[in-house]
Amino acid sequence: MGLMADLKQLGIYTHIHAELQALETELLEFVATDFSVLHEPSIHLLKAGGKRLRPAMAFLSAKFYKPDPEKLMFAAMALELLHMASLVHDDVVDESVTRRGCPTVKAQWGNIVAIQTGDYLFAKVLELLAKIGDPAISKILAQATVEMCKGEIKQIKTVHDTQLSFQQYYYRIKQKTAILLKASCYLGGIAGGAPKKETWALGAYGHALGIAFQISDDILDITGEASELGKQTGGDIRQGVMTLPMILALKLSPRSQELYQILNKQAKSEWDVDLARSLIRESGAIQASGRWVNLFVDKAMKYLEYLSIIKTKQALGELAGFIRIRKW
Amino acid sequence: MGLMADLKQLGIYTHIHAELQALETELLEFVATDFSVLHEPSIHLLKAGGKRLRPAMAFLSAKFYKPDPEKLMFAAMALELLHMASLVHDDVVDESVTRRGCPTVKAQWGNIVAIQTGDYLFAKVLELLAKIGDPAISKILAQATVEMCKGEIKQIKTVHDTQLSFQQYYYRIKQKTAILLKASCYLGGIAGGAPKKETWALGAYGHALGIAFQISDDILDITGEASELGKQTGGDIRQGVMTLPMILALKLSPRSQELYQILNKQAKSEWDVDLARSLIRESGAIQASGRWVNLFVDKAMKYLEYLSIIKTKQALGELAGFIRIRKW
Repeated sequence: MGLMADLKQLGIYTHIHAELQALETELLEFVATDFSVLHEPSIHLLKAGGKRLRPAMAFLSAKFYKPDPEKLMFAAMALELLHMASLVHDDVVDESVTRRGCPTVKAQWGNIVAIQTGDYLFAKVLELLAKIGDPAISKILAQATVEMCKGEIKQIKTVHDTQLSFQQYYYRIKQKTAILLKASCYLGGIAGGAPKKETWALGAYGHALGIAFQISDDILDITGEASELGKQTGGDIRQGVMTLPMILALKLSPRSQELYQILNKQAKSEWDVDLARSLIRESGAIQASGRWVNLFVDKAMKYLEYLSIIKTKQALGELAGFIRIRKW
Repeated sequence: MGLMADLKQLGIYTHIHAELQALETELLEFVATDFSVLHEPSIHLLKAGGKRLRPAMAFLSAKFYKPDPEKLMFAAMALELLHMASLVHDDVVDESVTRRGCPTVKAQWGNIVAIQTGDYLFAKVLELLAKIGDPAISKILAQATVEMCKGEIKQIKTVHDTQLSFQQYYYRIKQKTAILLKASCYLGGIAGGAPKKETWALGAYGHALGIAFQISDDILDITGEASELGKQTGGDIRQGVMTLPMILALKLSPRSQELYQILNKQAKSEWDVDLARSLIRESGAIQASGRWVNLFVDKAMKYLEYLSIIKTKQALGELAGFIRIRKW
């Protein structure tokens, strides 16, 4: 099942249902502008939905301390908008035409509008940070943004690099995904007024879970169905983005030479993509990747031990567990 | 003569020579990263030079109050990097291949690197704002960024719109240029610890001067020589960006029908561009545009009357006067 639909049905989401609903209203209002060329793609992005995973992680991290509601809401909005800004630019860079079952901004309005919409959303993040007025929060988001740029470039530079090592893959997904999820929990801790040590532990939890989450997303790109994911599957294979299942399959598969040749092709037919997916699935690489997911979920769980509030432990534990139990 | 070379030779620059030199060192150090794909284009942008007009305006505005040197330097850096980030994205959007006599990032490294470099520079602006830790400053730069996005889109949307009115032109250059120059002086006032009323007057001065500056830049695109401007002249005509000299020439020229037909062409030959430039020059539109420049310079000068410090008045007055005396 697609992660997006699942996550919202998760028990923990009931804890933060009110916050997430308020977030939608606030985001729509905040991003609205009388300038239609920016308004329409921005609202399109918001309405396309998404898991709101980053705000959810911030809300859950803060919830059972004593959060400053305004600070928390602004931080959650900033996290989601930063994520959206980076997606809309990534779609230009990766030439993606669908995301979450909808045409991308790039596909619907073109590259120019997509670049400007991303810049506009960045600017709105800046506005939120000015409203929050907490340099510690600005610093974390600034650093996350720098890392996300590096991660995206790393991905571009290593396209079709079938020699990519696990370590290179790890650093890339850390930069592209884990650092913003870490920031989400960390900011939740700050806005919640959590003790310093616990804020640190929340960040470490978010980081480990971010790695698990990205590997699991990369697995779904091989094993999932387009109808569930809201985007074409096999996209990574098609675009030449090497992911953990591919790296492992090249080691494990008895037909690794054949797989290697397909992955090395600049232009792949749909038949190539389907064959590559089968070879990866049959190689045991999915199970092996799944073990890495679980390893990082375990790691995330361990950081929860540092937390003093049982409800936070439970909620974040449930979120982590959800990533573990996904079927391959 | 090109504005870039001129400005640096201006008397007032000697007041802030030390600040501008320190700015170069600080910017190079701050933007440097061990990540070469971002490092090289960022350093390329910095080394390509430029007027550093925004930092200069901030330094001059602050100088004769009692500036907090660190805050002022960070604000000046943020202004320049925000400007650079917007230029590098604009070059992708406008498909520009040279700027300041150098190939653009887009031309040298491609669109993908240009998009990511712009995002990286935005992120570095965010980092600076976190260091400054003054929400008033963040808010101003956030709003300026939003307006700059709108201005760029407006420019794109009105390409080849030979019906563009003076009012539409004014709003576009206000968003694209004047608002950041306003912010530059305003931030200078804040970092200088100027009284509130004077900070406001500094901002109003920057705004009016920004309009004058942009009109004068648009005039130079018609009258200047490529060797002086560091970029191809006639670029606005070629790209279909309507500027004040064109708007006025369409009203003033006895051959306005001919000019109208050229400006309306989607693809213009170099012969078309040269003819359009001649028609505009001969129509009296350059002199008429020059009167608008002087009008806004006068307006800028008037705001200087609110300032209490004679040296600030003199320095900013000299800067404004410089824009006035440019020969058409």
